[in-house]
Amino acid sequence: MKDSNLIWKHVKSEQGDDLGILQVRFDWLEHPRSKKVMKRLVLESVDWINVVALTEQRESIMVKQYRFGISQCTVETPGGMVDFGEEPLIAAKRELLEETGYSSENWSYLGAVEPNPAFHPHLCHHFLAENCLRTSDPDLGAGEEIEISILNQDQLKAAMNDGSLRHVLALSALTRVFSLWDLPFTNQAI
Amino acid sequence: MKDSNLIWKHVKSEQGDDLGILQVRFDWLEHPRSKKVMKRLVLESVDWINVVALTEQRESIMVKQYRFGISQCTVETPGGMVDFGEEPLIAAKRELLEETGYSSENWSYLGAVEPNPAFHPHLCHHFLAENCLRTSDPDLGAGEEIEISILNQDQLKAAMNDGSLRHVLALSALTRVFSLWDLPFTNQAI
Repeated sequence: MKDSNLIWKHVKSEQGDDLGILQVRFDWLEHPRSKKVMKRLVLESVDWINVVALTEQRESIMVKQYRFGISQCTVETPGGMVDFGEEPLIAAKRELLEETGYSSENWSYLGAVEPNPAFHPHLCHHFLAENCLRTSDPDLGAGEEIEISILNQDQLKAAMNDGSLRHVLALSALTRVFSLWDLPFTNQAI
Repeated sequence: MKDSNLIWKHVKSEQGDDLGILQVRFDWLEHPRSKKVMKRLVLESVDWINVVALTEQRESIMVKQYRFGISQCTVETPGGMVDFGEEPLIAAKRELLEETGYSSENWSYLGAVEPNPAFHPHLCHHFLAENCLRTSDPDLGAGEEIEISILNQDQLKAAMNDGSLRHVLALSALTRVFSLWDLPFTNQAI
């Protein structure tokens, strides 16, 4: 496979609306085969982080909050946005403390994923924080309202099954620490 | 945990720009505690689908394409958007055939995830297609350019390690079929 056959040539970019958490950009690119120039959407953001935060009993510190996209409450790993110029690990420690009041001395990097490379340039970094202790009260922003929930693995799976835990970025972080899926997959033909 | 403490009351919605693959909507919602009304971004779309497509040798049929968000080529599971009024399974069969020329008689549903419940209302449905056979040539849209790559599990892990396979929706589908992560996670403190 030669990548060069697949690469679209950048022609120009134009800044679009500032949507608050995302900045619109339009790129015009030349199709590698047809040479036709096409307009494509890019939604820029700072990087995101989330944290698999475990108590000393290896239960997961999860946050429950109303999510504006789906108009429902979800159960998720703590997380948020990396401030401009901030290290992802510092953002992870900050978000965990702000959202839950928990902190940890035992941090590991679980890797990064692309939230959607089709239109997002940024990454989501996954972290593991072990032996977390509640060291302060949560410090929620004016635009947040969060409840904390400490879940063991069975309770995580129950939340996955009832649909409250299906944010792909939360699941992506959790699957690097826990076996959430029964493998090998048993064919249930449809 | 009482959800009612967390639910923001909807005040009004306003349609924003049509960004092509996404439609902007702004919602005004009342914070459940402070009662302050705040503006929130929603990016609407039809549902998405992707497919873990396996040959008779249980190797993965993957697509390589240039992704406009990251300005690089990725390796991903075949997938795309559900047409308006289309069943997700029909969309999955259609996208697999269009992008790769492969089809299957053995389909399973792997479940759905929220691509980002913070601002997306829609879901991404994961499917498994086993014993896929190449039954036609790919039928790429004018805005696509794709190469096909058949990868065994070691090659999938190599693509994850070299960064070409880190689209979270592709990984989410694959982790429901393959053990992609070495568990238990070995702490590599940072």
